[in-house]
Amino acid sequence: MEINANPQKIKETLERGVEEIVDKNHLEKQMNSGKQLRIKFGIDPTAPDIHLGHAVGLRKLRQFQDLGHKAVLIVGDFTTLIGDPSGRTTSRPPLNEAQIRDNMKDYISQASKVIDVKKAEIHCNSEWFKKEPMSFLMDLASRFTVARLIEREDFQKRLKEGTDVSMLELLYPMLQAYDSVACRADIEIGGYDQRLNFLFTRRAQKKFGQDEQDILMVPLLIGIDGSKKMSKSVGNYIRLDEEGNKMFTQLMAVPDSQMWNYFELLTDRPKKEIENLKEEILENKKHPRDAKMEMALEIVSMYRGAEASQNAKEEFVRVTQRGELPSDIPSVETGEKEINILDLLVKAGVAASKSEAKRLVVQNGVRLDGEVKNDWKETLKTKKGQIVQVGKSRFFKLN
Amino acid sequence: MEINANPQKIKETLERGVEEIVDKNHLEKQMNSGKQLRIKFGIDPTAPDIHLGHAVGLRKLRQFQDLGHKAVLIVGDFTTLIGDPSGRTTSRPPLNEAQIRDNMKDYISQASKVIDVKKAEIHCNSEWFKKEPMSFLMDLASRFTVARLIEREDFQKRLKEGTDVSMLELLYPMLQAYDSVACRADIEIGGYDQRLNFLFTRRAQKKFGQDEQDILMVPLLIGIDGSKKMSKSVGNYIRLDEEGNKMFTQLMAVPDSQMWNYFELLTDRPKKEIENLKEEILENKKHPRDAKMEMALEIVSMYRGAEASQNAKEEFVRVTQRGELPSDIPSVETGEKEINILDLLVKAGVAASKSEAKRLVVQNGVRLDGEVKNDWKETLKTKKGQIVQVGKSRFFKLN
Repeated sequence: MEINANPQKIKETLERGVEEIVDKNHLEKQMNSGKQLRIKFGIDPTAPDIHLGHAVGLRKLRQFQDLGHKAVLIVGDFTTLIGDPSGRTTSRPPLNEAQIRDNMKDYISQASKVIDVKKAEIHCNSEWFKKEPMSFLMDLASRFTVARLIEREDFQKRLKEGTDVSMLELLYPMLQAYDSVACRADIEIGGYDQRLNFLFTRRAQKKFGQDEQDILMVPLLIGIDGSKKMSKSVGNYIRLDEEGNKMFTQLMAVPDSQMWNYFELLTDRPKKEIENLKEEILENKKHPRDAKMEMALEIVSMYRGAEASQNAKEEFVRVTQRGELPSDIPSVETGEKEINILDLLVKAGVAASKSEAKRLVVQNGVRLDGEVKNDWKETLKTKKGQIVQVGKSRFFKLN
Repeated sequence: MEINANPQKIKETLERGVEEIVDKNHLEKQMNSGKQLRIKFGIDPTAPDIHLGHAVGLRKLRQFQDLGHKAVLIVGDFTTLIGDPSGRTTSRPPLNEAQIRDNMKDYISQASKVIDVKKAEIHCNSEWFKKEPMSFLMDLASRFTVARLIEREDFQKRLKEGTDVSMLELLYPMLQAYDSVACRADIEIGGYDQRLNFLFTRRAQKKFGQDEQDILMVPLLIGIDGSKKMSKSVGNYIRLDEEGNKMFTQLMAVPDSQMWNYFELLTDRPKKEIENLKEEILENKKHPRDAKMEMALEIVSMYRGAEASQNAKEEFVRVTQRGELPSDIPSVETGEKEINILDLLVKAGVAASKSEAKRLVVQNGVRLDGEVKNDWKETLKTKKGQIVQVGKSRFFKLN
């Protein structure tokens, strides 16, 4: 593919949805040179579900692909095969090769909604690490100082608190750095939270006599709770292959304060148009909810198609704005004639825990056939066909 | 071989020349059990010259051999093959396998003066490390915390000072610890300066489900300068295969304050007799110099034989006490008719540097044919056959 060095395109790629670039001048020069650049993008093989938080980096990668550059996906399978029995990751058992392969297949099929997988180079880092003897790692270790590796704020904090940091964790950044050496990366794209690892990687390349990669860091997407980075463990995430209605509803739950980030990072809407939208809202010409629906419509149609997205929007309007029941309400089998309201909500999966269920109940968020139920001690006598509504948009039917 | 569980022998072995034992009760029980114990003894393959400082630990090992236990010598060749280009050891290039083999041959032949090499098991740690893939080291690393590895005072000091500690150095203690796992050590013998590594090793064995080794730490022998630990790098050492006269003279240079340590750690003289000697000196019945000669006579005869030791003693007396010339004076070829006195001393090898030579001269320590030469600027007109005396016991002849 021809390299596109259109200054406007380059400028957009390097400015929209970018937290920091090291080193920007150098990267611009490279992009103008007409040379095809190799863009490293690290993939974690432990999490098969990709969510919109991952999409931010993948979308940036796609923009480089569109300019003709080479996406190089690096699957960190080698370290995952070993696992880390110590410290904070005690609960995460090492994955076997089959699990990793499955996760990767899922990842790639989901990522193909964003990037052009066929044009990408995909490597597992076991390719270069698996065949190496123990002395390879020792040689690698001899090139780095302890001080450089433990200066990271997260390590320092844990060391000071007396929380265990396993020696293996200290080896990981060296391996991640070597990945860039092995795949001869010109740029690396990733989240801003990886900043120290990325900078460390530049030093590693220098020690191996390579040019230092440039780094393009994307901002961290805030999840639908409006406060924390979107992540699976927090539970504030939207899956990339989520069903259309649910995805739309989830996007509508994003607080207004975050809406503009979602526009910038997850849609292709031109910056100018986003600015116009903002102005319309400021001037009360548009309701923020309607702007958010435009955002949700655009994002859902990217992943589920225009028609599904349009249907999801209509369903959302019908249920939340006109107070009608959704067209398709899931059934929940209680198995008992009487059930405590908290147990029911947990069983139905609308609350992750009894304490979350209790919060929903006391906040008047739960209705049985339209009637608010705010006594969390209540034992409900259930009848088949009764409708439970939780908040504005979640419904289930008793069976 | 039958295990000797003579309580008196065991008591002597565990008390004479011992700095600390962990855990002493357990070790005693083991030694009384009649079981043959495996005693790990680490050997550094970088230094072919063994000196009396090394002999202290080797002699302790020999005592265990005499009780019927199994000496297991571990040559740390694996790490030495890799070397450590960083930090303080910059100047020490990695050794190749041939060099290590040669060093080991030298080491074993010298050590055979102290231990029964034929009955010892000798392993290079490359036996178990060389075949391992990189993931082995990662698995090992996952068992240890960073805090445990950097808590060592020497590391802490260097980290605080901003002196580089290479990541490889942090891996070494794990490897040394694994050696004990691989060779199934019941006890480890070594110098007290290795205390933290030894304790760390106990933890490692536990993590691998093995019983913790006991540790017998011997004191560090002070060198002939009377102040620093005997070591090659300080230059205050006496080689185990030193020629008899020189060894005797070097032992006589040991300060009186250190004489009793040499008796205890390097001779077989019973403790009772050493106490008697001390008393005789206190009561002025014996000159300390004569006690020291007994010490030197005994040590030299261990390594050079009784006859050579006796001759060395006589030579020493003749030269230093009766002021006679030694029977065998080395010649030095000056190659010039005139030479500055400092240059001459450096050339003859009696001073390591001009500044050391200058000190000898101004302290009236240098004579030419019996006449004190204390002007360091003097240019000597040399004649063949002239005798230069430096201090009490060093002589050379001009040629």
